[in-house]
Amino acid sequence: MMPETNERALVAQIERRFSSVRSKALRLSLGDDAALWFPRSGHETILTCDWFSEGTHFLRGRHPADAVGWKCLARAVSDIAAMGGKPRCFLLSLALPKSLTGKWFATFLRGLRRASRQLGCVLAGGDITRQEKAGISITVVGELLRGRAVLRSGARPGDLLFVSGTLGEAELGLRQLLRMRGLAKPCTAALAKHLYPHPRLALGQWLVEKRLATAMMDLSDGLSTDLPRLCAASQVGAKIEADALPVTALAKGGHAQALALHGGDDYELLFTVRKKDAERLPHRFEGLRLTHIGEITRDRKILVQSEAGKTRPLASGGWDPFRKV
Amino acid sequence: MMPETNERALVAQIERRFSSVRSKALRLSLGDDAALWFPRSGHETILTCDWFSEGTHFLRGRHPADAVGWKCLARAVSDIAAMGGKPRCFLLSLALPKSLTGKWFATFLRGLRRASRQLGCVLAGGDITRQEKAGISITVVGELLRGRAVLRSGARPGDLLFVSGTLGEAELGLRQLLRMRGLAKPCTAALAKHLYPHPRLALGQWLVEKRLATAMMDLSDGLSTDLPRLCAASQVGAKIEADALPVTALAKGGHAQALALHGGDDYELLFTVRKKDAERLPHRFEGLRLTHIGEITRDRKILVQSEAGKTRPLASGGWDPFRKV
Repeated sequence: MMPETNERALVAQIERRFSSVRSKALRLSLGDDAALWFPRSGHETILTCDWFSEGTHFLRGRHPADAVGWKCLARAVSDIAAMGGKPRCFLLSLALPKSLTGKWFATFLRGLRRASRQLGCVLAGGDITRQEKAGISITVVGELLRGRAVLRSGARPGDLLFVSGTLGEAELGLRQLLRMRGLAKPCTAALAKHLYPHPRLALGQWLVEKRLATAMMDLSDGLSTDLPRLCAASQVGAKIEADALPVTALAKGGHAQALALHGGDDYELLFTVRKKDAERLPHRFEGLRLTHIGEITRDRKILVQSEAGKTRPLASGGWDPFRKV
Repeated sequence: MMPETNERALVAQIERRFSSVRSKALRLSLGDDAALWFPRSGHETILTCDWFSEGTHFLRGRHPADAVGWKCLARAVSDIAAMGGKPRCFLLSLALPKSLTGKWFATFLRGLRRASRQLGCVLAGGDITRQEKAGISITVVGELLRGRAVLRSGARPGDLLFVSGTLGEAELGLRQLLRMRGLAKPCTAALAKHLYPHPRLALGQWLVEKRLATAMMDLSDGLSTDLPRLCAASQVGAKIEADALPVTALAKGGHAQALALHGGDDYELLFTVRKKDAERLPHRFEGLRLTHIGEITRDRKILVQSEAGKTRPLASGGWDPFRKV
């Protein structure tokens, strides 16, 4: 009766692909005007959205469609992890050129579905349009117990500064990818971290549950860009020790340190802990390293202390889509 | 301390512009990783997202930035109206070329803020990136009493079919705009309807409250495209009377009828009512005309009956971004 137009065919393909990933809290209504979702009582809702665009966040000829599907959801879910919440569902806004509606689209959906399953975040709805270059906007809805969210603004002078995992590997992976020819294969640890980041959901939730973190955010744009944001929100400064940074073993000395300071896309958690609570923090959480990298200061400068004890201001060297035009 | 980069400057401009539009249910956190929102107990959450893109949904040289700001939110909120819900907050995903970050951006925000205030839908967060052509994706979060949402799938054979307002005026306005030179001014009623649509929130909520509508959706792509969607979801057909359509007085005879059947962007409500309940439906709701245009049938065809009593299948002539490539 109604012609099977391209938009309908794409939506049908999404519905088929995601029909097995469901949630009782969601009355799935991909075919309706909107989705209906039952929030849990006593909880508040976390809302976040994130762009993932061709040319800015990924390159069509270099980033595999499967990794694009995984990463666009994983990085949006990372904002939920950064507050200590649990992801529940997501909305998918897709702007695609016709050339990406065939095999690329099917592979993209495969990566997206894997992320959806592993991160416990079901597809609730979306919208599709056409555009010369692909643009993906993901909205994630999460939950956590009312009043328990850890914000960027909670850091106080004297709090100790921690990061999870290793810093700079995703940036190293991006550089490897840019030196390769054609489509990247995650053949190195660094490249895998660039293509398939893992939001630190369990750690974020645990820090909230134990009431350990006073402020928290995820590292998406690099420590030298993100730390000033946390400090600005908290109206404090920070001093970090360059030698304490959990640098990657995949690069050497000064290069590894620069990657750790300025490299983006790691999606590790940056958080502060009261000095008296710091002993309750393990060195590892479920295998993930937790590293004390510095301290929050009343003086609102962001300083980095080098090996030789010298202190210099930390210059922001991270990611800003508009600055790099 | 931190350089005022372009992205930060745009976000700061959004924050200033929207600082007066607040909600107690929302802990605004434009500066944080995500927004926090308190759902009301006994309610369910409605989630929807909508694209509004340059070249597909608006033309830079023709559609005023103020109207782009208004319409991108109004049309997304219309999906909430279509379920009978109340909009609460929205997330703004903006992809902009550098050339639109100056005066255009300020004017866009003015239109967006007016819509935000009038529709009772506060800004909860967002993300900005750059892109050669502007792309806007809006996610709206709404609420309604648990179990009360009116879906597309509730129409039963014998139910009567209604629409609100007048059909085809927005399409007429678009055609006027395309014949003008340069930037459109809403100097005609039709153009005003194209540029500044009003989602039928009060009507949708009233139909839910009175339990009158069995199925409902908003008319975004034109009756001949949207009615088959409602029928498909309900697994029914429909017969409409061409003469009964609330055509615009701004066009003549057959032209007005074609506009009413196929014109998009009206954002009126299409809904079904049990025959026995139809007498409880007024001819006007708060000044807005409600018109009985046909009936739901068991036979799954979509038919239109002409003046002379002749019946023909209704061919879909509405909007599909991919078909028009």
